[in-house]
Amino acid sequence: MAQTHALQALVEALKGLPGVGSKSASRMAYHLLQHDRQAATVLAAALTQAVRDVRHCSQCHTFTELEVCETCSDALRDGGQLCVVETPADQSAIERTGTYKGHYFVLMGKLSPLDGVGPKDIGLLKLKQRVQLGTVREVILATNFTAEGEATAHVISEMLRAFGIRVSRLARGVPAGSELEYVDLGTIAHALVDRR
Amino acid sequence: MAQTHALQALVEALKGLPGVGSKSASRMAYHLLQHDRQAATVLAAALTQAVRDVRHCSQCHTFTELEVCETCSDALRDGGQLCVVETPADQSAIERTGTYKGHYFVLMGKLSPLDGVGPKDIGLLKLKQRVQLGTVREVILATNFTAEGEATAHVISEMLRAFGIRVSRLARGVPAGSELEYVDLGTIAHALVDRR
Repeated sequence: MAQTHALQALVEALKGLPGVGSKSASRMAYHLLQHDRQAATVLAAALTQAVRDVRHCSQCHTFTELEVCETCSDALRDGGQLCVVETPADQSAIERTGTYKGHYFVLMGKLSPLDGVGPKDIGLLKLKQRVQLGTVREVILATNFTAEGEATAHVISEMLRAFGIRVSRLARGVPAGSELEYVDLGTIAHALVDRR
Repeated sequence: MAQTHALQALVEALKGLPGVGSKSASRMAYHLLQHDRQAATVLAAALTQAVRDVRHCSQCHTFTELEVCETCSDALRDGGQLCVVETPADQSAIERTGTYKGHYFVLMGKLSPLDGVGPKDIGLLKLKQRVQLGTVREVILATNFTAEGEATAHVISEMLRAFGIRVSRLARGVPAGSELEYVDLGTIAHALVDRR
């Protein structure tokens, strides 16, 4: 088949999605054009809108369309507790347990020297400034229990040692080596209660 | 996380892609917004352009931006041979073998009564009209060697029996039960030469 320019461009663009290779991209393009052009149009609009509107909360760094996200501006939440997570997906997993009513700090990544991700890239300076304000009594480190997540937690706890606040880590109820996003909610709830 | 409206809409829209569930859609959305907004913008444009420009060739039904696709309008190709395939991907696989210089008819599907896909949905009426024009000497049935592909080939060969033209099937060099798109090119070339 002499592929059309527009189709080729679509297949190439779909390969920009994580976990999508040539074959998957072709299948997606054919499916959309043959069976669901409506979905393609909806996806195009959603992409455009998200790129335009979604930015980072000025306080916790999570994705939001506002200057300060709804979680950070919720007066009923306890500003004395700050839970540090790697991604919005991890934050979402903790929220769904319904057992945590403090604030969050979303790193939007993890320390990964091999990939060139250093303390600045995950906003540790900003985290330090947040703690320096004096309102935070306790920082709960809820990074993933992977090598990089553990290293990130270690670096943060070292950084916060000087401030004399409580720094806890999710309890080891979470199976080692796993990623928070995929752990069942009961285990996460248990780990929150047993934090050390 | 109180997900933003735009982010939620993007995750939902990504779930419209075949083979993408909730978790994958979330990961894709986070990846695009965090690491590659450029890719998101490119994808949105490619989707919009493809939906607007890509249509079906009036002769062979494959995807094209023209009224008649480049393959069908190529004067060097033999209009006496008509290779019937299920999808543009299958057509592409045959093209890449470099052993076929005739025309194509792309069904854009296969007979599948359980899914409500009948002869009309895969353009068999149009295929019949094409053969009735009298220019086609031979129809090569290159549908997949799956149950549905075999059934489709059988129905087409029955339909064309009255016209007294040669109707062949890709040789059994292609492993039974497999899909053309994933077969190595040598095997496809062999099957083309040995068609029965």
